[in-house]
Amino acid sequence: MVIFQPSGRRGYISKGKTIKQASVELGVDIEGICGEKGTCGKCQVKIEEGRFDKYGIESSRSNVSPIKETEKKFLSSLEQNSGYRLACQAEILGDIVVFVPEQSRLGKQVIRKKAREIDIELKPAVKKYFIELQKATLEDTQADFERLSKELNRRNKLRDLSIDYQVLTGLQNAIRDGNWNVAVSVWQDREIIKVEPASGEKYYGLAMDIGTTTVAGYLCDLTDGTLVDTASIMNPQVIYSEDVMSRISYTINNPEGLAQMNRAIIEGLNSMVQDVTNQTGIEQQDILDMTIVGNTCMHHLCLNIDPRYIGKAPFPPALHRSIDIKARDLGINIAPGAYVHVLPIEAGFVGADNVGVLIAEEPYKQDSIELIIDIGTNGELILGNREKLVSASCATGPAFEGAEIKFGMRAAPGAIEKIEIDRDTKEVRFKVIGKEGWNTEINDIGAKGICGSGIVDAVPQLLMAGVIDKSGRFQKKLNTPRLRQKDNSWEFVIARAEETSIGQDIVICQDDVRAIQLAKGAMYAGAKTLMRSLGVEKIDKVILAGAFGSYIDKRAASLLGLFPDCDPENIYSVGNAAGDGARIALLNVDKRKEANRIAREVDYIELTLSSDFNKIFAQAMWIPHMKDEFPHMAHVLP
Amino acid sequence: MVIFQPSGRRGYISKGKTIKQASVELGVDIEGICGEKGTCGKCQVKIEEGRFDKYGIESSRSNVSPIKETEKKFLSSLEQNSGYRLACQAEILGDIVVFVPEQSRLGKQVIRKKAREIDIELKPAVKKYFIELQKATLEDTQADFERLSKELNRRNKLRDLSIDYQVLTGLQNAIRDGNWNVAVSVWQDREIIKVEPASGEKYYGLAMDIGTTTVAGYLCDLTDGTLVDTASIMNPQVIYSEDVMSRISYTINNPEGLAQMNRAIIEGLNSMVQDVTNQTGIEQQDILDMTIVGNTCMHHLCLNIDPRYIGKAPFPPALHRSIDIKARDLGINIAPGAYVHVLPIEAGFVGADNVGVLIAEEPYKQDSIELIIDIGTNGELILGNREKLVSASCATGPAFEGAEIKFGMRAAPGAIEKIEIDRDTKEVRFKVIGKEGWNTEINDIGAKGICGSGIVDAVPQLLMAGVIDKSGRFQKKLNTPRLRQKDNSWEFVIARAEETSIGQDIVICQDDVRAIQLAKGAMYAGAKTLMRSLGVEKIDKVILAGAFGSYIDKRAASLLGLFPDCDPENIYSVGNAAGDGARIALLNVDKRKEANRIAREVDYIELTLSSDFNKIFAQAMWIPHMKDEFPHMAHVLP
Repeated sequence: MVIFQPSGRRGYISKGKTIKQASVELGVDIEGICGEKGTCGKCQVKIEEGRFDKYGIESSRSNVSPIKETEKKFLSSLEQNSGYRLACQAEILGDIVVFVPEQSRLGKQVIRKKAREIDIELKPAVKKYFIELQKATLEDTQADFERLSKELNRRNKLRDLSIDYQVLTGLQNAIRDGNWNVAVSVWQDREIIKVEPASGEKYYGLAMDIGTTTVAGYLCDLTDGTLVDTASIMNPQVIYSEDVMSRISYTINNPEGLAQMNRAIIEGLNSMVQDVTNQTGIEQQDILDMTIVGNTCMHHLCLNIDPRYIGKAPFPPALHRSIDIKARDLGINIAPGAYVHVLPIEAGFVGADNVGVLIAEEPYKQDSIELIIDIGTNGELILGNREKLVSASCATGPAFEGAEIKFGMRAAPGAIEKIEIDRDTKEVRFKVIGKEGWNTEINDIGAKGICGSGIVDAVPQLLMAGVIDKSGRFQKKLNTPRLRQKDNSWEFVIARAEETSIGQDIVICQDDVRAIQLAKGAMYAGAKTLMRSLGVEKIDKVILAGAFGSYIDKRAASLLGLFPDCDPENIYSVGNAAGDGARIALLNVDKRKEANRIAREVDYIELTLSSDFNKIFAQAMWIPHMKDEFPHMAHVLP
Repeated sequence: MVIFQPSGRRGYISKGKTIKQASVELGVDIEGICGEKGTCGKCQVKIEEGRFDKYGIESSRSNVSPIKETEKKFLSSLEQNSGYRLACQAEILGDIVVFVPEQSRLGKQVIRKKAREIDIELKPAVKKYFIELQKATLEDTQADFERLSKELNRRNKLRDLSIDYQVLTGLQNAIRDGNWNVAVSVWQDREIIKVEPASGEKYYGLAMDIGTTTVAGYLCDLTDGTLVDTASIMNPQVIYSEDVMSRISYTINNPEGLAQMNRAIIEGLNSMVQDVTNQTGIEQQDILDMTIVGNTCMHHLCLNIDPRYIGKAPFPPALHRSIDIKARDLGINIAPGAYVHVLPIEAGFVGADNVGVLIAEEPYKQDSIELIIDIGTNGELILGNREKLVSASCATGPAFEGAEIKFGMRAAPGAIEKIEIDRDTKEVRFKVIGKEGWNTEINDIGAKGICGSGIVDAVPQLLMAGVIDKSGRFQKKLNTPRLRQKDNSWEFVIARAEETSIGQDIVICQDDVRAIQLAKGAMYAGAKTLMRSLGVEKIDKVILAGAFGSYIDKRAASLLGLFPDCDPENIYSVGNAAGDGARIALLNVDKRKEANRIAREVDYIELTLSSDFNKIFAQAMWIPHMKDEFPHMAHVLP
């Protein structure tokens, strides 16, 4: 039996086949461009079980063939010892469990959480002081802690300092190892969280954005605010289930569910700590601070808090405001005395990630009415300005991520990400992730499916080409071979079989259009409800946050009616604003206070309580809307 | 092989012998008064290893005979399951490890740490509030923590509360289990340390006095201040070594030494938690606070801090001031969110136990000049009044505890604790612990040795009877059969062989007198040095603290010259004042602040730095002193 992780695919494979061959048989995608010659080094996998014989020795009794010279070229001895192999070289001799790391997954998700420049005053929670102490003598026998505190008071005006208990236990040795010259790290001007012999000045912090699907980490130099390294992984909880609600169900239905989920994300965070320290040569012990954002469910799972109550009405979380927890209490492997600052959450599913967006975008400092849309696996909305902010959470469903779409897929190589349909000929131009140019220009365009941004493109294109009407129905009388009926359902061909790598036409069917209508209708209706509650007639500015928001075409999104009319000049994509917020909170403690204040001030509107939400929602399902005007799009809409 | 714990005595014993018989062979004392008939129940021991066969079942393959009906009368089923047996009934069938509990040890130390009445305003660190919450609804979705905080603010004026992280993880279930009626325990008006469904009002705290030899615990009801139960054990660290300095050496010489010592005391504290909860039926979870006092070394070992630096000049401790540590971080099994408050230490070996004495005795509130002597394994002195306090630590050595004395023993049954010598006949009257009456009145007085209070009695009695002179030398020309030369050394017979249970004369020899002179000389010289540094000529009041202080005859101590002259009317024994201090700090948080303040204000005098300390010491070795006058004792001194 061969088991692939994290996909969980498994099956019996004949002895002597390579892991790569097994992966093909079992439908697991592993990267590789050298034709299994062992020369590209891209198919690295980790043997998790089966490496050792019963004596714990990697010998002839191991369930995998001995490592070859070709492999050693690509694998450090550390990696070799950890069980890393090239999938195309390692032969299967018995039962094994193989882990396919992120970077070896073919069709791996393009992690669209890039870091942008952040311009903010540096005011970190942790500061490091270099202190030279007077040695203890028989005339001056004061305790080490008091000696250190007095000096920090005298030189740095720090008063009433406490000390982390574990740091205290090592204090005397640290002072003497440093020959009474020590570097002292102080958290929030009130607790000594590290004492070490005086040496390098640099110390670091790590901002973590825990998404339902992707986790992004930003390692920052806390002495100058620079971004030193980034890391990202799939959220390891996806092994258990894909979306928020099913993760909550999992914890309810499995006695060990919460513990498993918590362990998964904590191990994930630790693997990222490992990644950034390996990549930079920085010590884990020199990471002295961490901030975390995430939606309410990720927040609870990360803190090992039962999420069952946020899974059903009235959805109260365990706490709203930010909390500082010792890294060691969470099980996170940074400096053991360090704190992890978890940003506050607003309400329902409007979580700490949304607070991150808020402190990054600062709508509460603007005069213009801004609508911030954070489109992840869930959709969150904020509307308002310096006078008032309201927020809501929309159940968009996973259509925007390519799920529940016939040929939907994640934003990965091979995904159609951009679509244009000629109004007259109904011919289709499209672009595929990983290829330069349009299908009309490239021979081996090799489409595999359509990702979210492609679908957002497609629906208004279908409307404007007259393939569907405003209600989303296919215009069956239209005379084009691309529109056809199949299995009692109408569909429109986007890519012809020869333009794909899957050997069949990639189409958009009626159900796909309906799924998108539901998703965008929920967003639109949410925004509309918020506008009503604020009493505003129009939106001055739309901010698209989140990975997905960065990649959709803002004109297409307008035409689809993802949100009410707005001047395209004033529609912005801001990328991973939640992650930016985590970084901002890492670099400046005042922003943490601001986050707590704002999280309290934002008025959360429970959409399902709005008496005519269903009516608003029904109208919003039309493309772009049943009744609302779109002055800024009037020139292109049919 | 049979091994007895905690003594560590071991040997091969023939199969079929009882554990009691084995104990006699191996020199382990086990209590018992029924002649091994199984009718007194006093010889309870615990089988630690060897109870089970290799399948983990107590069967015919067990290394100890099956339990008998006679035993079941004295052992609860819980005790039976835990491996408790009567030593006189259980037969040895193979290798076993037997633990002899404190109460079954024959000749167990009489734990002289009794609790006295404490009259203090009740102001505990932890308060319990009963809160009825409004259920969350779709109109009111605030988080559980904020809901609780707001209610505590509204009703109890508690502001800016934080919450223990572990308590947070269980908060939502606790609130719902209690149907939104909860009991909330708040520490220092600032942190929620327990939330439980509303039920009983009572909650408790435990004050711990960690002595080098004995650990005493006082369970107090924090709702009314009453003392509910007490517990005491031998400090489990005595397995490793007897006194403070040798424990420090042990941690230096053994890589695992500190970890072992720390584990020993923490396990000891946990066994006391178990004892008081078993005895009272109170749940461990309902113990919401703990205070700890102990000398500097016990303090460090308990906190897992390397004591090597307090073992050599200039003896700086890791910290002076009090510290609050989560019980779970120390590994102490009370309510997991609870804090342990460790009282401050002064300097050198003048530790938190001495601070306990200070806040119990409050010399800093008096006009009269008080000398507080805490005689434990180490001697600590405080002198002064409301204007100024000075302290010192004296290396008295273990003579007062009966060690380094030829027939010395601990204060245990069989120990001579009181001695009178007729000035004319030189005949000796003595009393033995565990016997009512004098040796002259009882036939089977059965003395085994002399304990500290007996020795303190004996030396001035020898002086007044003219057996020794002021310099401590035996008067060899004295004509009494009790004074004799043996092995080139002179000795005086206190108990004749027929008055003992050891079959030989119990004597005091010249070396014994010298050892006592050294010990008392150190104390006296310490007090003298403190008087000088304060500039006072006489002491108004002497307070004898500590177990030993309670049992010595204050007139004998005066005549011995343990301290400078003082009116006997103004000499008081106050028992375990350190433990009283721990209880006081448990019951009233203001006293914790007072302790920190006082610990800083007391001026620690390092005696070895005093230029003429050696001269002062040499003079103080005379009995009662070479030169000083003792007006209050003049009528009895020769």
